[in-house]
Amino acid sequence: MNEFALIERIRRRAAADGDSGILIGIGDDAAVLEVAPGRALVASTDSLLPGRHFLADSTPADIGHLAAAVNLSDLAAMGARPRWALLALTLPEGDSHWIDGFLDGFLPLCAAHDTRLVGGNLSAGPLNIGVQLLGDIEPGRIARRGRAQAGDVLLVTGSLGDAAAALALAETASADLLARLRRPTPRVEAGQLLAGMATAMIDVSDGLLADLGHLLGPSAGAWIAVEKLPCSAALASSAIDPTRRWRLQLNGGSDYELLLSLPAVAVDTAISACAELGVPLSPIGQVDGSGRIECRLADGNRLEIADAGWDHFQSR
Amino acid sequence: MNEFALIERIRRRAAADGDSGILIGIGDDAAVLEVAPGRALVASTDSLLPGRHFLADSTPADIGHLAAAVNLSDLAAMGARPRWALLALTLPEGDSHWIDGFLDGFLPLCAAHDTRLVGGNLSAGPLNIGVQLLGDIEPGRIARRGRAQAGDVLLVTGSLGDAAAALALAETASADLLARLRRPTPRVEAGQLLAGMATAMIDVSDGLLADLGHLLGPSAGAWIAVEKLPCSAALASSAIDPTRRWRLQLNGGSDYELLLSLPAVAVDTAISACAELGVPLSPIGQVDGSGRIECRLADGNRLEIADAGWDHFQSR
Repeated sequence: MNEFALIERIRRRAAADGDSGILIGIGDDAAVLEVAPGRALVASTDSLLPGRHFLADSTPADIGHLAAAVNLSDLAAMGARPRWALLALTLPEGDSHWIDGFLDGFLPLCAAHDTRLVGGNLSAGPLNIGVQLLGDIEPGRIARRGRAQAGDVLLVTGSLGDAAAALALAETASADLLARLRRPTPRVEAGQLLAGMATAMIDVSDGLLADLGHLLGPSAGAWIAVEKLPCSAALASSAIDPTRRWRLQLNGGSDYELLLSLPAVAVDTAISACAELGVPLSPIGQVDGSGRIECRLADGNRLEIADAGWDHFQSR
Repeated sequence: MNEFALIERIRRRAAADGDSGILIGIGDDAAVLEVAPGRALVASTDSLLPGRHFLADSTPADIGHLAAAVNLSDLAAMGARPRWALLALTLPEGDSHWIDGFLDGFLPLCAAHDTRLVGGNLSAGPLNIGVQLLGDIEPGRIARRGRAQAGDVLLVTGSLGDAAAALALAETASADLLARLRRPTPRVEAGQLLAGMATAMIDVSDGLLADLGHLLGPSAGAWIAVEKLPCSAALASSAIDPTRRWRLQLNGGSDYELLLSLPAVAVDTAISACAELGVPLSPIGQVDGSGRIECRLADGNRLEIADAGWDHFQSR
């Protein structure tokens, strides 16, 4: 049983009655809870483990940055304003140097987004970094998954594929590519801005195609214009040829960019507004009613993609 | 560096400015956050690991119950009303049977306290059970640590020592003692009731003396009347002699009872109110200005206690 089937199984068992203040429960990037009339709290949690979520040779500061980034990105995907963080750290021993290094990466990224560390828990055991993030949001401006409709334009912030290319190139990866893998940039401000416009939004953590699958409404499909996938200068100038590059961009994951669907009339406004934040926003395809996802090339051919992204409970 | 020194180190580095909505930050049983004017959210997080927080032969349902109980107890100690839970589960493999068993223990205890599972995260790796609990509280009724004042009476709910006795007796422990170890009862309703009266409150997880140390104000001390420590019928009828029993009650931990300080005038009211909930509340000593903790016997002697309770980063 894969991760999503397990989550669906848990969701069914946890089904709550109507009066529990749950605006969004299990299955989205974060839960949304009504904490006072008209006031919504967004809560997300993520665990990071060595070898799975960060490289074994990552510095504690890189791990701290990543732990903050992953959770800030979850809140960004809802359009929330992050406010408070809790840490559940399981460490092999009470090593204050490790914690100091971790906080060197964790606290500045939190502070850059006005987010304060307010509590947590320390345990001894195999390294496991649990982060909980709390934020707030106007209930009318929540961006959800599974709502993209036929006709909507698909857009993505920033660029795709750098983190996957850094992994693929290993020792020969450039510093710029490695920085995207080790120190991703959560799109917190862009998320808040786009949440008011998008029909659906998600962050690209598992891979563009896998996350696109979650973005689409029940009977929707989509096509992607492969050559339009935004590509950094670092990736374009790497040793990776275009076909391999597209596969990394489509399936690589760990980009922490925002993928969203917009009504066609809103595209220009959204691109201009993001540009004011210094965040590129690129149209990459469109939602249709086909019920499947197609990767198109400009010459009229299709790019066949087998791998459907990252599943934490299956090997890659 | 022990757990509390590490937490203090983190607290200093995370110090936030005044405008961040933090009513209580790092260092208490849970964080308290102002989510709307006059509305406070309580957030706690805990991680459970095999061998440390539960026995290797615990069933998934026992682990699920314990995971809910530990966090409900943290919220009870603040006087909060629990509302929502998130789970960050790290499992060796995607085993739906394990998760089903875990939920068999977790969900009913949450439901008994009107608490809904609203989200979380699944990862693959060494077993690590992270629980986050969110609740609400009236800002004027928050029970804190570190506020017990000279003259206050010390009281504890329920009885102490059963869980420690179950561990000490191992295979010869009675079913009643084992039930206290495997399925502790968080004092959620009593916590909400007592929060409006107590000068300070904490839950007894690390051991009575260790937790009493956190309850006391800066220059306060306390004495405990050892023979008055409430003892269950199961513990009284066990093979453990009184001196060993007192040590288990004072240092054993994992009781998940509430320890609180009350002005002497409020004691009778509090005991009557708890009795209406079916929860025994027993005076066990008093806060004084001595700056140390003394365990007194009725014959005028003192009981010398070396061990000061559980530290997750030091061996027992």
